Amino acid sequence: MADQYAQFGEDKQSTGIPVIRWDEPPEGPVLVLLDQRRLPTDEVELVCTDAPALVEAIRTLAVRGAPLLGIAGAYGVALAAVRGFDVDEAAAALAGARPTAVNLAVGVRRAREAYGAVLADGGGRERAAEAALGAARALHREDAEASARMARHGMALLDELLPGGGHRVLTHCNSGTLVSGGEGTAFAVVLEAHRAGRLRRLWVDETRPLLQGARLTAYEAARNGMAYTLLTDNAAGSLFAAGEVDAVLIGADRIAADGSVANKVGSYPLAVLARYHHVPFIVVAPVTTVDPDTPDGASIEVEQRAAHEVTEVAAPRAPMAGAEAGGGIPVAPLGTQAYNPAFDVTPPELVTAIVTEEGVVSPVTSEALAALREGSRQPL
Amino acid sequence: MADQYAQFGEDKQSTGIPVIRWDEPPEGPVLVLLDQRRLPTDEVELVCTDAPALVEAIRTLAVRGAPLLGIAGAYGVALAAVRGFDVDEAAAALAGARPTAVNLAVGVRRAREAYGAVLADGGGRERAAEAALGAARALHREDAEASARMARHGMALLDELLPGGGHRVLTHCNSGTLVSGGEGTAFAVVLEAHRAGRLRRLWVDETRPLLQGARLTAYEAARNGMAYTLLTDNAAGSLFAAGEVDAVLIGADRIAADGSVANKVGSYPLAVLARYHHVPFIVVAPVTTVDPDTPDGASIEVEQRAAHEVTEVAAPRAPMAGAEAGGGIPVAPLGTQAYNPAFDVTPPELVTAIVTEEGVVSPVTSEALAALREGSRQPL
Repeated sequence: MADQYAQFGEDKQSTGIPVIRWDEPPEGPVLVLLDQRRLPTDEVELVCTDAPALVEAIRTLAVRGAPLLGIAGAYGVALAAVRGFDVDEAAAALAGARPTAVNLAVGVRRAREAYGAVLADGGGRERAAEAALGAARALHREDAEASARMARHGMALLDELLPGGGHRVLTHCNSGTLVSGGEGTAFAVVLEAHRAGRLRRLWVDETRPLLQGARLTAYEAARNGMAYTLLTDNAAGSLFAAGEVDAVLIGADRIAADGSVANKVGSYPLAVLARYHHVPFIVVAPVTTVDPDTPDGASIEVEQRAAHEVTEVAAPRAPMAGAEAGGGIPVAPLGTQAYNPAFDVTPPELVTAIVTEEGVVSPVTSEALAALREGSRQPL
Repeated sequence: MADQYAQFGEDKQSTGIPVIRWDEPPEGPVLVLLDQRRLPTDEVELVCTDAPALVEAIRTLAVRGAPLLGIAGAYGVALAAVRGFDVDEAAAALAGARPTAVNLAVGVRRAREAYGAVLADGGGRERAAEAALGAARALHREDAEASARMARHGMALLDELLPGGGHRVLTHCNSGTLVSGGEGTAFAVVLEAHRAGRLRRLWVDETRPLLQGARLTAYEAARNGMAYTLLTDNAAGSLFAAGEVDAVLIGADRIAADGSVANKVGSYPLAVLARYHHVPFIVVAPVTTVDPDTPDGASIEVEQRAAHEVTEVAAPRAPMAGAEAGGGIPVAPLGTQAYNPAFDVTPPELVTAIVTEEGVVSPVTSEALAALREGSRQPL
């Protein structure tokens, strides 16, 4: 099942982090995932031989991150098809593994439709399975290509904003290889700067409560040999005050039509600090993140998460004596109520630029975003 | 050993939290401390029968907080004196238990000098011991009185700034009964508002990396029956954006002559957010916190703490499987470097007011602070 793109962002990622790959050992095809629950201490691969194994991996967060879930879902459909299982059943189970993950459902549907189209044309199950795998590979490749283009656009913007080079970049949460078919969004730009020898330091916010910065971004930075330093989220202020931050680079969960950016909680305070200290605040995200049906920041509903993420401390997969409801050790009095929004919203006036695979929007306006979305529908 | 002030802020604190007390059971005098390492889950008293036991309690952070350490140190000298141990040896051991804690040394010296003065006058060891205990009680009482005055001044300021009542106050770190001979600094003001029925909600920053907000401030809020909510430090931005914060109230480690405020890391980002959202940012601290020998914020040397506080998660006194150097579970890759400043510095232009036991300084200027310090040296 040769594929001319097999070397690009798929079987072997250039960062060397084996996030996801399709393999065909003698025992039959499998989907191999990096078990993200074990990071950063252990780098363990998880081999899925059927869709139920992948559903379990998705449910337990062994694989996570919006674009990566879409790719995994598509490969899961292909896996069921190639191994001769019931494809509809597999597709339904995969799409339902995390109901709020839109990309997962989209990826599953894409592979399922490719499979169905060949069957409908009388192509037979074997050719239909090849078509499903082809769809998964195409999605994987497109995502990697989008990452690469965001990295180039972002790098050009950094060079324009900071002509001196020797960038000291602050990032929040995780936006790299671990969430993507390629090298991610904001982290892909950082990696591009690192490879060009123009990254002096990556400041990594630990990103409470789930510590994606400490666990995942620090892991990716270490894996790529970057000069990086971890900090508690509330120590970022001291770095800005000391003039140690040249730019903030973050990803986005959703971007409203007016350019308001929803991203991991803690992004907005960084935007305010960046403004106060005249430091560029740059958002990197694919064009599909811009949602024309969400007119502005106020229309974005913010998910409130469980209190135990804040009232207990926990390390995944680390058994702890005295563990409570959330699997952790209580650090607050019993019955403590917590305010635990999953993300926050940064208004467009605080965003210096939005970098997409189609180009850079700066200043951030509804008109510029609409034009970008329009352009992305044209063939390139 | 009757004391006319025995009911005020000493043997029984009005918050009902048994932070520190001198007791005289039939077996002999003892100093009883709340073991702060066990909070918030267990409320356990630690009974010290001699100075070495207290030294151990100080070293292991069973008792902590600048003013409280001074009081504990003074009682420790009295304990050695009353029980007939070598007072000089006890004083030296106590003062050295935490070398950087200035208040500890000051408290020890005060009791030691009271003891020495009586001996020098030929008053005998029993009367000298009584004098040492009197000095400890006086320090305890003065601290409680200062807390009460800060609470009144702070409450008046809140009423002036927020005439509507129903205050929603955000605080950071711990500044209450647990660090003080009375009800603390910023937390004492919050408590005053609560008792007056004018506190709608206390927002408690968890305060990474050591979680003093989650562990200690949430405990004090719960113990006093306040409406409080815990949040990760990086979620404060969302509260400001939603208009849910009426004022920020924090303590201070040190205040420079120009009004720059050194306090727990994470205070400065709150000051920037408060300014951006036009919310008062109020610092509450005794006059002794103002250091005339530190001219400005740049002169304040910021202590950098160990990386493991950030690279590992830990809950004190909770044994955990796989615990590492710092006693916690690693959450970042091995060898990760951390930026872990103990505090940050907020410039005077971001501070709405400094509340002391001698009155309120607003706007914050060198001249106003100097006048306040001058006034506090006059008899009241």
